[in-house]
Amino acid sequence: MASPEKRIKAKWSESELILNISEIFAESNSDLLVGIGDDAAVVRRPDNSLVVTTDMAVEDVHFKVQWSSAYQIGRKVAAANLADIYAMGGKPKYLTVAMAATGNEDLEWMLDIAKGIAHEAHVVGAQVIGGDLSRSEKIVISITAIGECQTPILRSGAQIGDQIYISSLPGWSAAGLLALQQNKSGAIFDFAISEHQAPSVDYDNAEQIAISANSLCDVSDSLLIQGQQMADASGVQFEIDAKLFEQHPDFNELSEVADALEISVFELILSGGEDHVFLATGQGVRAFPIGRVLAGNGVRLLHVDKPKSGWKHFQ
Amino acid sequence: MASPEKRIKAKWSESELILNISEIFAESNSDLLVGIGDDAAVVRRPDNSLVVTTDMAVEDVHFKVQWSSAYQIGRKVAAANLADIYAMGGKPKYLTVAMAATGNEDLEWMLDIAKGIAHEAHVVGAQVIGGDLSRSEKIVISITAIGECQTPILRSGAQIGDQIYISSLPGWSAAGLLALQQNKSGAIFDFAISEHQAPSVDYDNAEQIAISANSLCDVSDSLLIQGQQMADASGVQFEIDAKLFEQHPDFNELSEVADALEISVFELILSGGEDHVFLATGQGVRAFPIGRVLAGNGVRLLHVDKPKSGWKHFQ
Repeated sequence: MASPEKRIKAKWSESELILNISEIFAESNSDLLVGIGDDAAVVRRPDNSLVVTTDMAVEDVHFKVQWSSAYQIGRKVAAANLADIYAMGGKPKYLTVAMAATGNEDLEWMLDIAKGIAHEAHVVGAQVIGGDLSRSEKIVISITAIGECQTPILRSGAQIGDQIYISSLPGWSAAGLLALQQNKSGAIFDFAISEHQAPSVDYDNAEQIAISANSLCDVSDSLLIQGQQMADASGVQFEIDAKLFEQHPDFNELSEVADALEISVFELILSGGEDHVFLATGQGVRAFPIGRVLAGNGVRLLHVDKPKSGWKHFQ
Repeated sequence: MASPEKRIKAKWSESELILNISEIFAESNSDLLVGIGDDAAVVRRPDNSLVVTTDMAVEDVHFKVQWSSAYQIGRKVAAANLADIYAMGGKPKYLTVAMAATGNEDLEWMLDIAKGIAHEAHVVGAQVIGGDLSRSEKIVISITAIGECQTPILRSGAQIGDQIYISSLPGWSAAGLLALQQNKSGAIFDFAISEHQAPSVDYDNAEQIAISANSLCDVSDSLLIQGQQMADASGVQFEIDAKLFEQHPDFNELSEVADALEISVFELILSGGEDHVFLATGQGVRAFPIGRVLAGNGVRLLHVDKPKSGWKHFQ
């Protein structure tokens, strides 16, 4: 889930910290197929491999109770975890939920959080099997998802010559956030706002994509950030052609929303996150093509300027 | 981990909420051997069963940065999770860590949290395989532990005629907390304070106890609370004889600390939590006997008054 790096001037950067922490947690363990650094960890088991991921959401950082119902908040945090399992080519089975709340919430509101999580789990056939409840001044929800997979699809698997694909058009959640921040209303913003409150994740598409993809991840920060991460991990360049987005069936609708928000539609598509769109590379993958994998490094954009917000994601 | 129910007057009680949430998450799933309500969940797998638990710790609720080093905080939160896996008769294998911090911590302090978690994981041969990092105004650490077990030992397994056992004497962590709260110092309080900062959990004893125990749990709240929970789950009465504690090799030392704190030693033993002592029932279990399982219900105390703090645990 998005991290609020740009809000707080910190004594450490997230990337520096994660690099150091990865070294502390590193151990030689032949059962650990994928460790820290991909969407989820994968450990070898006698039968299928286990896929494990965790994701924490903090009130006023990742969600606002004024903007989202408890049910939507529950759905959104669960979706972020479930998408990470699919992003490894896995299928989620079990969730645990740790939550801290002030105690001043209505019982009904607390139960709606649980119902939102249960709804999202139910969509993919997963189940909440355990939890913990604490008190704090702000609401914090931390979910761990455990799934299974046969062969994990890594961020590092992109091959020169692959096409680059997305499962659907990203940018809706970012548009919804902007509409909420700018206090905009009207039918034109309804879908974007609802996608920000709780994204409709392409779980089925992800399963389909994983069958033939060489590399895969879910876009939780932004297409540019995750594209950069996959290019780095694979030692290749991602060439993304903005002209291709224009052929996506949702492009015109998102463009209208972008116009109403007075922002470039490509800013939304390239720098918006939290839709949990799946980004993949491969040949003949059943998804929407947006570019190709070349020798080189980083992300190269064709037919569009680098977004003003650069590599930062909205939040 | 202890919940601060007595601090905040809430719109809901934890027990009411958990009961309602359990119903929301309930699903018929023949793979789920143990669901919400025991120390950890257990799911059937083709090989060994998986044991899964999660535990969240919040700054100023579960720990204070003034009282504990980052290393101790890391150890303590990890220990709470690992103890839950042992409390099912399981062996921990993998941990995930989700953490929120302000960004104003020193990098070194953040890395010490990771080192404390890694230390505790290493003690039991487990490994941290994934994580998430967020920002928040207070530090929050949420860990999920995944382990294996062959036959889960439940809270509900106590049989009439069983002896009741503890793996070691509880009360040290509560004594340490009181010493810190009362700003006491001196060598006499050193061990208690260090046990409050990061308990030395009897992981090896737990493994030994699980071999022959009929029921098992770890004391995270208090001996009385967990005893009551096991008695309720098993449909029996727990008769705990305070005279037996007096024969424990650590009793005199804990009594001296209790005297210095001007509190009854039995208050510490019966109402103190967070030592993660293991409480078991069975016959001929290799642990310290403190009573027996009878027909009836609840906890019956012999040779001691019910502690003033009643069923509430220290925090």
